[in-house]
Amino acid sequence: MNGFPCKHNVSADDFFFDELSQPRLTNNTFGATATLVTVQNITGLNTLGVSIARIDFAPRGLNPPHFHPRATEIVFVLKGILEVSFITTDNKLYSKSIKAGEVFVFPKGLIHFQKNNGNVPAAAIAAFNSQFPTPQRVPNALFASSPSVPNHVLAKAFQIGTKEVKKMKSRLAPNK
Amino acid sequence: MNGFPCKHNVSADDFFFDELSQPRLTNNTFGATATLVTVQNITGLNTLGVSIARIDFAPRGLNPPHFHPRATEIVFVLKGILEVSFITTDNKLYSKSIKAGEVFVFPKGLIHFQKNNGNVPAAAIAAFNSQFPTPQRVPNALFASSPSVPNHVLAKAFQIGTKEVKKMKSRLAPNK
Amino acid sequence: MNGFPCKHNVSADDFFFDELSQPRLTNNTFGATATLVTVQNITGLNTLGVSIARIDFAPRGLNPPHFHPRATEIVFVLKGILEVSFITTDNKLYSKSIKAGEVFVFPKGLIHFQKNNGNVPAAAIAAFNSQFPTPQRVPNALFASSPSVPNHVLAKAFQIGTKEVKKMKSRLAPNK
Amino acid sequence: MNGFPCKHNVSADDFFFDELSQPRLTNNTFGATATLVTVQNITGLNTLGVSIARIDFAPRGLNPPHFHPRATEIVFVLKGILEVSFITTDNKLYSKSIKAGEVFVFPKGLIHFQKNNGNVPAAAIAAFNSQFPTPQRVPNALFASSPSVPNHVLAKAFQIGTKEVKKMKSRLAPNK
Amino acid sequence: MNGFPCKHNVSADDFFFDELSQPRLTNNTFGATATLVTVQNITGLNTLGVSIARIDFAPRGLNPPHFHPRATEIVFVLKGILEVSFITTDNKLYSKSIKAGEVFVFPKGLIHFQKNNGNVPAAAIAAFNSQFPTPQRVPNALFASSPSVPNHVLAKAFQIGTKEVKKMKSRLAPNK
Amino acid sequence: MNGFPCKHNVSADDFFFDELSQPRLTNNTFGATATLVTVQNITGLNTLGVSIARIDFAPRGLNPPHFHPRATEIVFVLKGILEVSFITTDNKLYSKSIKAGEVFVFPKGLIHFQKNNGNVPAAAIAAFNSQFPTPQRVPNALFASSPSVPNHVLAKAFQIGTKEVKKMKSRLAPNK
Repeated sequence: MNGFPCKHNVSADDFFFDELSQPRLTNNTFGATATLVTVQNITGLNTLGVSIARIDFAPRGLNPPHFHPRATEIVFVLKGILEVSFITTDNKLYSKSIKAGEVFVFPKGLIHFQKNNGNVPAAAIAAFNSQFPTPQRVPNALFASSPSVPNHVLAKAFQIGTKEVKKMKSRLAPNK
Repeated sequence: MNGFPCKHNVSADDFFFDELSQPRLTNNTFGATATLVTVQNITGLNTLGVSIARIDFAPRGLNPPHFHPRATEIVFVLKGILEVSFITTDNKLYSKSIKAGEVFVFPKGLIHFQKNNGNVPAAAIAAFNSQFPTPQRVPNALFASSPSVPNHVLAKAFQIGTKEVKKMKSRLAPNK
Repeated sequence: MNGFPCKHNVSADDFFFDELSQPRLTNNTFGATATLVTVQNITGLNTLGVSIARIDFAPRGLNPPHFHPRATEIVFVLKGILEVSFITTDNKLYSKSIKAGEVFVFPKGLIHFQKNNGNVPAAAIAAFNSQFPTPQRVPNALFASSPSVPNHVLAKAFQIGTKEVKKMKSRLAPNK
Repeated sequence: MNGFPCKHNVSADDFFFDELSQPRLTNNTFGATATLVTVQNITGLNTLGVSIARIDFAPRGLNPPHFHPRATEIVFVLKGILEVSFITTDNKLYSKSIKAGEVFVFPKGLIHFQKNNGNVPAAAIAAFNSQFPTPQRVPNALFASSPSVPNHVLAKAFQIGTKEVKKMKSRLAPNK
Repeated sequence: MNGFPCKHNVSADDFFFDELSQPRLTNNTFGATATLVTVQNITGLNTLGVSIARIDFAPRGLNPPHFHPRATEIVFVLKGILEVSFITTDNKLYSKSIKAGEVFVFPKGLIHFQKNNGNVPAAAIAAFNSQFPTPQRVPNALFASSPSVPNHVLAKAFQIGTKEVKKMKSRLAPNK
Repeated sequence: MNGFPCKHNVSADDFFFDELSQPRLTNNTFGATATLVTVQNITGLNTLGVSIARIDFAPRGLNPPHFHPRATEIVFVLKGILEVSFITTDNKLYSKSIKAGEVFVFPKGLIHFQKNNGNVPAAAIAAFNSQFPTPQRVPNALFASSPSVPNHVLAKAFQIGTKEVKKMKSRLAPNK
């Protein structure tokens, strides 16, 4: 309970986290890494409804289309320039290029993405109004789930052939 | 306010809707049509946090991958057989084939879809815990938004070529 | 937690229920049977805030005056014709006759009832914005509780004699 | 907004009410009068989710069975002795006799009533977690609504004859 | 769960409390004693979001500046006259002198205090929209915490010398 | 409404703010300046429940004891070293020295403060789970309100003489 922690022997360390200070590696498929600091990392966040993240971008890196089912997000750019975008439920795209010290809002539950179009790394801090704002990453959810979404469903949904579906699956879930 | 409507001259018709009784046309790209009855159709729903929908499926029709940023959904099959599926934030797929009179839950904010694999039409009723559970339809949001999501973003996100991105856009948003 | 079930070995069956497909027996005092599908039947509904029910009506059957302390309800008529009504806190009655495919809203916490005035059975589906929308059935709460509401309280409340109170109790709670 | 009132020229009087200091008349059908102090009386309560009431009882007076669709209630007895009771959704009655300075809880949305079984007046203060905890008074809602609940519905609901229904209506709504 | 208590063998006593009937001793530093009746005293309050308190005042007694991080409060004066005040986030003071039977609202989370300026004891009942409205008492939080707030912080915050800080600490936390 | 802004002609600029990129002046009484970016600065935040702030500290600067009645806060240090502290409702102090890239949580509604004990400026970003997390600054609320808190109240609350109260008022509200 707020101000009356469930744990015995609570200390200031239960409200502290120290692993956002350095950039994370970004040598993955998308060239971007999001490091969420949630109630799983800070036990003192329990019931408090807020969390934070650091997102690192390689040059040309993309934090791919995703959404947070339970949270609105505000990003604050630490360094570099990011192209930030979200899409509303009536398929309007809102997009802007933002630089260090600028902020942008991604409304709760809407698909959004951030891209570093520059030739140098970029980084941002993100604030969420949930203590556990797990994202649903769209390409991975649809083309790399376990078990797989049937090929005929993805073919019809994206209006492509099953051959292309298989190629996308093999690239997004190479080990399956 | 609950029990004290804002409108003057409230009548029972403000709590009533009569246009779900007949199947809707399903002659569209996906072969499926969702008809939502929200606070926009029933003014008496204001502040009450619930709504309902009818979904009609042509043979082989697909209600394509989408999610409701603000609502959990329960479907009840009126006729036919549906393959119903949702994907969690850690990319697990839960799927089941359900028939008339059976129900299935799609947890709040998670991507889900329903497919009629049969040769006859199917229909379902859906209940939502939001008075305005607008869906975000994934293929349309990403490949048919206005303005467009840049080709290079979609190519990187789905690990395909820009030529394939353009083909998908032309099929999902033919008039752009 | 949403998308991260507490149970281990979660399966699609935790989001599924199959016992609404057939009409229930309605040979009871009121000639109506409500079958609720709540978090007690579908464990996957936990924390998700929605549920569904099927209500079957014999000819002339009545789902007697009741309310849901925690939920708004929308009914969708599956077959037959129902006279549906609710009463506001300033004692206004809103009432309408609705038929198959039509929907009606009962605002959260207000007394309502549904009556089949026809000579054939009727049935409806109800959606609730609560995972556990237990109803409080007014005649049973007041005249069939355990222990009993004192006769003098009911006599004063309904402005009748204690002899009539005893008769009502004996009919609504015959085994006491 | 909390701490930033919408009104201009807000004063301390917007957070004040002075009409609970004297007992109210209790010469009505039930011998009890509830005086609610809600956001309609104290404009400063807007969005703040709490309210208060005074209930006066004549000797043998009854605050008849009712419930608050949006609020839990705690009563504190100012003077006299009250028999306080509520009924759960599975028809269990919880009842107790409480005297000046004692408190009792009526859980949100459940039918409850208070009776002064003594020969002297009694009074209580009630706290609610809603800024507008309008009660639904059961006998009046069912037997004195406008328009009337049909006689055949009430006869079936309470298992009585329509003659008795008419008598109850004439006593609870004498002017109709 | 509301109406379905978690405990087995629930009884009416789980919704009852009897220790507010007598004035409490007020022979402390401030000349005022608040007795909260929360979910810790009434187990039946669990999840119900409301609680009550009695506050006793010696002549000239002060319930010192404090706030409830999770609750709005309404006071009802039982006897005597109280000077009641709260301060908004833009440092506006709202203040009023209220007497027996009058009520005043302290909006959620704002600093407030009550003072008995008279020569006779006073008493009030307070209602809260939280089942556990623990107060944060400002002088004690800042000058009597454990461990201590550093002297240089308090000196800068209140624009006083560390000698005065030490004196205030010694009076508010004499045993440290 | 989420995804359906009330404004016409919404643009990406309604979700953007660019005035946090530079340090603010800190030449005030406390040597610290908090710049909140709320729904008043970003109209697109309406109903979305999150906001962000930048806090700049002069050497030895103090963001004085305050609390947010409606929000939990997480700070992320941009540069320098801060001593961060909060106090619970049972007067326990939790305190820690944190440096660039480290985060600390201040639970909802609890008094907290941050101090730059170093000889160089420091800066932090703060995330809040409220779109309008107005702080209540304790020294200013009590010693610089308008109208003034009576001297005798502050003298009793802080256990000091009225002469000292007047001195504190004159320093914290010099223009009154």
